[in-house]
Amino acid sequence: MTTQLVGKMVIGQSGGPTAVINQSLVGAILAARTHANITGILGARHGIAGIMKEDFIDLTTQSAEQLELVAATPAAALGSVRLKPGRAECEKVFEVFKKNDVRFFFYVGGNDSAETAHIIAEMAKEANYDFCTVHIPKTIDNDLKVTDHCPGFASAARFVALAFMGDDRDNYALSGIKVNVVMGRSAGFLTAASALARQAEGDGPHLIYLPERVFNIASFQQDVRDAVAKYGRCVIAVSEGITDKDGNPISTSGERDSHGNVQLSGSGALGDALSALVKAAFPGEKMRVRADTFGYLQRSFPTIVSPVDVKEAREVGEHAVNHAATTGQPGSVSIRRVSSQPYVSECFITPLSSVAREATEMKDEYISAAGNDVTQAWIDYVAPLVGELPKIGRL
Amino acid sequence: MTTQLVGKMVIGQSGGPTAVINQSLVGAILAARTHANITGILGARHGIAGIMKEDFIDLTTQSAEQLELVAATPAAALGSVRLKPGRAECEKVFEVFKKNDVRFFFYVGGNDSAETAHIIAEMAKEANYDFCTVHIPKTIDNDLKVTDHCPGFASAARFVALAFMGDDRDNYALSGIKVNVVMGRSAGFLTAASALARQAEGDGPHLIYLPERVFNIASFQQDVRDAVAKYGRCVIAVSEGITDKDGNPISTSGERDSHGNVQLSGSGALGDALSALVKAAFPGEKMRVRADTFGYLQRSFPTIVSPVDVKEAREVGEHAVNHAATTGQPGSVSIRRVSSQPYVSECFITPLSSVAREATEMKDEYISAAGNDVTQAWIDYVAPLVGELPKIGRL
Repeated sequence: MTTQLVGKMVIGQSGGPTAVINQSLVGAILAARTHANITGILGARHGIAGIMKEDFIDLTTQSAEQLELVAATPAAALGSVRLKPGRAECEKVFEVFKKNDVRFFFYVGGNDSAETAHIIAEMAKEANYDFCTVHIPKTIDNDLKVTDHCPGFASAARFVALAFMGDDRDNYALSGIKVNVVMGRSAGFLTAASALARQAEGDGPHLIYLPERVFNIASFQQDVRDAVAKYGRCVIAVSEGITDKDGNPISTSGERDSHGNVQLSGSGALGDALSALVKAAFPGEKMRVRADTFGYLQRSFPTIVSPVDVKEAREVGEHAVNHAATTGQPGSVSIRRVSSQPYVSECFITPLSSVAREATEMKDEYISAAGNDVTQAWIDYVAPLVGELPKIGRL
Repeated sequence: MTTQLVGKMVIGQSGGPTAVINQSLVGAILAARTHANITGILGARHGIAGIMKEDFIDLTTQSAEQLELVAATPAAALGSVRLKPGRAECEKVFEVFKKNDVRFFFYVGGNDSAETAHIIAEMAKEANYDFCTVHIPKTIDNDLKVTDHCPGFASAARFVALAFMGDDRDNYALSGIKVNVVMGRSAGFLTAASALARQAEGDGPHLIYLPERVFNIASFQQDVRDAVAKYGRCVIAVSEGITDKDGNPISTSGERDSHGNVQLSGSGALGDALSALVKAAFPGEKMRVRADTFGYLQRSFPTIVSPVDVKEAREVGEHAVNHAATTGQPGSVSIRRVSSQPYVSECFITPLSSVAREATEMKDEYISAAGNDVTQAWIDYVAPLVGELPKIGRL
């Protein structure tokens, strides 16, 4: 049996915020307070960047009331960071940990954060420093490996489903063609959640385009013409990450983010480009074509949360700390779906290496043969996560 | 005393949908069922356009349960229309009314709809046809004259306030400069509602630009530099309707809508143009600048409604029908604020001519001297309408 680790813990948040990432933070803090071998709780401001500067908040004294307010607030209360640290930066982090007698490190984030945690865990092993790193999953993209789904996804998916439900009624009232651009660079999970807006034959979205399939402009234009012929209108869900057959984005603002990736969010460029393509698909006709880009609202909107997501985000934080405090073993928390009806899930630990670095994408069985819609298997997967949606009233 | 009118009623919905316009519809239908002199209830599909085609739905038989589902569903359940009818079209409408023994006409919409109702009422008078038209107010723009505020506005304002609250936390977590474009062609009410997102010193939005003030690019860039110097970041609320000193839009997609107005919504063009201006304000610096355009989500998002708005939208529909059925007199329903704390309001009837055609805009006392923010008087006005907002938790 492992000798029990005794020392302080550091917790940090990384990457794009979610509506429930603070649930994981608060779950971890409250669990840590129950373990005598965790001798102090330090929150790192802006993740790895804050650790290197020893920019910590003491998290041992806040009232449960204050913490519950934090848990219910979207975005990252500690501040977040977009930084893939190299070996030199990880060494700096490890130095700060040793200096402060930090024996536990919890990093809430996606696959890049798991990779960071993994590198630090490996360094501790090499240095024979008794130390435990656990990655706490978070991403609205839902693209982590091993886990059934990622905390943060279901709440963003709920926003997308509700947005499409309302926008489809708006489009029904005034007619025309509407393009809505949804977040997701390489995985279409969030865009695919738009299908939950449908409650009756003819409800939109009528077309769904995912980054898992090549986006062909001519096929797109034909799809839209077909939908307009059938429904007299058309609501379209498009992932911001769609690419052509060579893997190039269809349209961007031309900017790059701090990771050197082409900037997709925070610009209306793709929506406007698709609007122009739609108009061109109806030469000589006066079509009402509009595009909205949901942008950052879908990941940080207060009050729009999935109950399952709230519960699980809290649980992965608790599970990470309880696992670390009792076993001292590194790992990443994953979620196993025990049952879909009724929905039941449980947490388990998977090796850091199994989720670090590489991300995943939507399974083929979730995407329609024509590549412009989702399947019933997808609905069966996602519906229990998003929770009950309001019923549309009609005359 | 007027002889009581006896005959059918027609109700239609017009203009941009709102989250609560169906509350007004259902309020009117249920009220009409209590008046014996209203002998039938016809819903016009797509407003005036449907009336001209006699495209009606019989609204006398739906269950209360079905109607309540409709009331809670955003957008216009009867379908809407953007049509300012000329005299010829109004004559056609009047002809259909006479043919079907319609004695009551209720039109749910903004100032253009009030104008339509007014023309039809005048025609009936000229023709000595006993007839009563009542306009039921609706607009997220909040720009109708006479009334304290417009049904539909408070729910959209709630969406805007929540969106800014979450987005400001998102921006706090990852820093940078964020531009959010809000609906409102000529009136800044909805954009100004973003100020409700602030709960502590330093919370965004840090700058608010309204169509009531000339948008000067150099001042804007200086404002952003000042805010970044002060807060290390900046969240900006901008109305889609901002114009330069000559009244020209700052940036648009170049399209025009069916009224011949420059298309402002349904395009990310203004947000992207402002992003570029912000980047240009920091030459040689690598700033993270993002822009979102809230678009149609803010007017049709299910579940995001203000309780006051839901109640008042129902009441204006009921008041219109009760007034018409008992007095036979035309008019427009307005809302009078009796008290702000506690919030109390009541409906009253104002002449159609007093709200028709011309719209209003934000009072000077609501706009800061520098023209880039709102005042406490504005907060006092808008806060009771939007309702309680979640409290932000912080560490």
